[in-house]
Amino acid sequence: MKKLFVVGIGPGSPDSLTIAARTAIESADILVGYGAYIDLVRPLFPQKPTFQTGMTREVDRCREALRLANEGKTVALVCSGDAGVYGMAGLILELRRDFPEVTVEIISGVTAALSGGALLGAPLTHDFAVISLSDLLTPWPLIEKRLLCAAEGDFAIALYNPASHKRPDYLAKACRLLMQHKSPDTVCGYVQNIGRTGERSVVLSLSELETAQVDMFTTVFIGSSQTKVIDGKMVTPRGYRLD
Amino acid sequence: MKKLFVVGIGPGSPDSLTIAARTAIESADILVGYGAYIDLVRPLFPQKPTFQTGMTREVDRCREALRLANEGKTVALVCSGDAGVYGMAGLILELRRDFPEVTVEIISGVTAALSGGALLGAPLTHDFAVISLSDLLTPWPLIEKRLLCAAEGDFAIALYNPASHKRPDYLAKACRLLMQHKSPDTVCGYVQNIGRTGERSVVLSLSELETAQVDMFTTVFIGSSQTKVIDGKMVTPRGYRLD
Repeated sequence: MKKLFVVGIGPGSPDSLTIAARTAIESADILVGYGAYIDLVRPLFPQKPTFQTGMTREVDRCREALRLANEGKTVALVCSGDAGVYGMAGLILELRRDFPEVTVEIISGVTAALSGGALLGAPLTHDFAVISLSDLLTPWPLIEKRLLCAAEGDFAIALYNPASHKRPDYLAKACRLLMQHKSPDTVCGYVQNIGRTGERSVVLSLSELETAQVDMFTTVFIGSSQTKVIDGKMVTPRGYRLD
Repeated sequence: MKKLFVVGIGPGSPDSLTIAARTAIESADILVGYGAYIDLVRPLFPQKPTFQTGMTREVDRCREALRLANEGKTVALVCSGDAGVYGMAGLILELRRDFPEVTVEIISGVTAALSGGALLGAPLTHDFAVISLSDLLTPWPLIEKRLLCAAEGDFAIALYNPASHKRPDYLAKACRLLMQHKSPDTVCGYVQNIGRTGERSVVLSLSELETAQVDMFTTVFIGSSQTKVIDGKMVTPRGYRLD
């Protein structure tokens, strides 16, 4: 049995794994992943052999996971959050044509839009869009277009990868684009280090978000026109009548 | 301690709960929820008292959960999928003003966009939008606008509540709107009864989806222009260079 699990491990704390994710990792002969994600699960499985690569070595990492599975090892490729959402599931399915005997099972996990949303309140209780601001693999004009379309549709929005050392000003650029269709008073929020040391959540307006300092471990939430602040929490109502 | 957990239980199978969700339910004196969702977790906690309501009694259900917590019981309000995404977290935060002593903790879970995506392949590996086709609480013109904006932005899209007895033709209407901006050949898929008896996934084109028969236990996925079929799986590439 040549088996590869692509496992979403959730935001980082050991109890945010699903039982299926934990079982898959337990059953694996070797864990493969980006070092920082391996570190999140290592305390749960201290004896498990690992193969780690750096952050931008995704293709190498996935090929190695498939190669190890093809050798007969049961492999768990770990992704933070969900295995699909900006995760490795897609790349594994693309690369599998070179390893046709490997059976791939994708195990979904709690992506940052959900875990971060729970910390902020309930920002995504109605329709929403998820957009990454990283232009490493996506041309910036397409990101810009998606921001404008999501704003025009009055979606709540979760922004992944809102900034990095090379892109310190992308969140501010995104906020200015969103303000073409959304009010500067739109309720927004961001969360940092979800489920990890330094966890922090902030609720603020879209105009305040434009000048906020965020890093690559941040997920940003932009409200719809209906989003409000209730007792310090960011809430997008579903629309139930309360009287 | 007056404590209310709002718990996302994932799609339905016992191993799709997170460890945090399971722990919260274990710690509760009583489970509150829509009967069909209570039934999903009852086998795990057969001795646990429950308070159940029908499908459209969300406000009553949430008030009762808060009332029971206010009496001193530890309450777990269970939601299918995530606690936030079309779940009860928002409504609880809105209603909590009448129960200021109750502490609310939201525990996120794997929403159908993620669990259904994993069954289909990796449809949401790039930017995506989540839209409910139910117009019980949302005016249809707003749903229509969001469909058009998401299509114009070339988002992959997950559609929740694609049909019901009263709305058998909504998915067909949505497909026709999406085809204003998306090719009829766009790769699509749907999943039914995720993690439950009768689980089924289908990959098809947008024009085929227009005439597909789906029910309220279905989640529908519309690809972006980049989505493709690989070995029968629906895959939206992240954009890695494979050569």
